[in-house]
Amino acid sequence: MDKYAIIVAGGSGTRMGAAVPKQFLLLDGEPLIMRTLRAFDEFSKIILVLPRDHIGYWRQLCHEYGFCLPHEIVPGGSERFYSVKNALDILKGNGLVAIHDGVRPFVDKSVIGKACEVAMKFHAAVPVVPIVDSLRKLPDGGKASFSVNRKGMFAVQTPQVFDLQMLKAAYECEWSAGFTDDASVFEASGNKVELSEGSRFNFKITTAEDLQLAEALINAKIVF
Amino acid sequence: MDKYAIIVAGGSGTRMGAAVPKQFLLLDGEPLIMRTLRAFDEFSKIILVLPRDHIGYWRQLCHEYGFCLPHEIVPGGSERFYSVKNALDILKGNGLVAIHDGVRPFVDKSVIGKACEVAMKFHAAVPVVPIVDSLRKLPDGGKASFSVNRKGMFAVQTPQVFDLQMLKAAYECEWSAGFTDDASVFEASGNKVELSEGSRFNFKITTAEDLQLAEALINAKIVF
Repeated sequence: MDKYAIIVAGGSGTRMGAAVPKQFLLLDGEPLIMRTLRAFDEFSKIILVLPRDHIGYWRQLCHEYGFCLPHEIVPGGSERFYSVKNALDILKGNGLVAIHDGVRPFVDKSVIGKACEVAMKFHAAVPVVPIVDSLRKLPDGGKASFSVNRKGMFAVQTPQVFDLQMLKAAYECEWSAGFTDDASVFEASGNKVELSEGSRFNFKITTAEDLQLAEALINAKIVF
Repeated sequence: MDKYAIIVAGGSGTRMGAAVPKQFLLLDGEPLIMRTLRAFDEFSKIILVLPRDHIGYWRQLCHEYGFCLPHEIVPGGSERFYSVKNALDILKGNGLVAIHDGVRPFVDKSVIGKACEVAMKFHAAVPVVPIVDSLRKLPDGGKASFSVNRKGMFAVQTPQVFDLQMLKAAYECEWSAGFTDDASVFEASGNKVELSEGSRFNFKITTAEDLQLAEALINAKIVF
C-alpha cells in the first residue's frame, strides 16, 4: 500500500522571539524541519508545505546543508486547512496519507507505524498521549478559571493518518473555525477516527524551552 | 510572612514497573524527592507526606545519602485529600502554604516565587502552562473519542499556594471524588483561585520516559 506524507510547516510565527520561523531553527546543527522530514524517508512521497515566502530560503538551506531527501514543495494557504488541501490536491491514487507537524522532529518509526496500522484497519488514526496534569479553563474574557475533568482526556499528536481518498473527499467541505486538526475535518464529514499510541518525546517545538529540551534529548542520545 | 511547604509523596504506585515508588527513584544519583525538597529550602517549615509504610525506608535513605534538610514527616491517607489534611493539621498560625507534588523535582524559585506573590494578593494561586496540543476525550466506556476545544485551556502544576487559614477551613469539608487537586477543594468552599506562571520544566516524573527526560535536562545543565 502506498504511503504519502504531508509535512505542514506553515508557521511564519516567531513565538520564540527568534529571527527565523520555528521550522528553520537550528537543532543539533541543522534546521529542525530536516530531522522531521527524515522520519518519513520510507514513504512513497513526501510533500512539504511551506509559506510561499519561505520556499526560496528553504531551497537555499537544502543546498547549504546538503539535504537531498527527495520531497515536493507546496505553498501553504492562509489557514492550516488550506495548506493541507493544497498538498492533498497533488496526491492521486489510493493508499494512506500521514499529515505531520513540521515542528515535531522526534516522531519515531514506532509512532508512525502504529498510526498507519490503525488507519489501515479503521481509515483514520490519531496518535495521543494521556494528559497527566489537572486541567483548568480560562473562558474568553472571563475573570475566573474553572477546573476541567481530565478523565479520559488525551493530548493529540501527529502524524494523523487517513485513507487518502476519504480524506480528499472530506477536504471538499468549506473551512470552519472549528477545524483544529485534520481529524476534525475528517469527522465533520461523518467519519470516525481511532486513537493510536503517541510518545512523550513527540512534542512540538514552539518555545525556547522546547528547543532546550530537544537539544538535551539529542545530546543524551534519547532521540535520534 | 511565614511560608510553609507541604510536599505530597503519597504514591506507592510503580507505573514505571520499577521496584521502588516513583518519589524514591534515583535521579542524578539520589532519590528524586530530595531534589524536590531542596527547592523549598527557604520556607519556614517543610512537611513531607509519605505513605506510612515508606517512612522507615525514607529515614534510612536520608541517613544513607547524608540528606539533612530539616523537614517533618506526616503519614499519608487513603486519598490525596486526606494526605494534605494530615499535614495541614499540624500547621498553626498565619501565612502561606505551598502544596507541591513530590514528583515535580524541577520546580524553580521563580515558579514558587510567582505563585507566592499571587497568593499573597488573592489568597490562592495555581501555576499553569498553556496546552499546546489539540485535545480529545474518550468517554467512559465510550467507543468514539471526540475533539475538545483547547482554547483557554491550561495544564495545572504545583506548588498551589494558599492562605493557610483559608485552606485549613476549606479542608474541613467532606471528601469528594471531584477533588483533583487542592485548588478544587479550595473552590468547593466558594473561594476563588488565580493563575500564576508555571514552567515547561516543572513536569511530573511518572513514566520511564519522564525520567529519561529529567536526566537529560540535568546533564545539559538546563535544570539544577
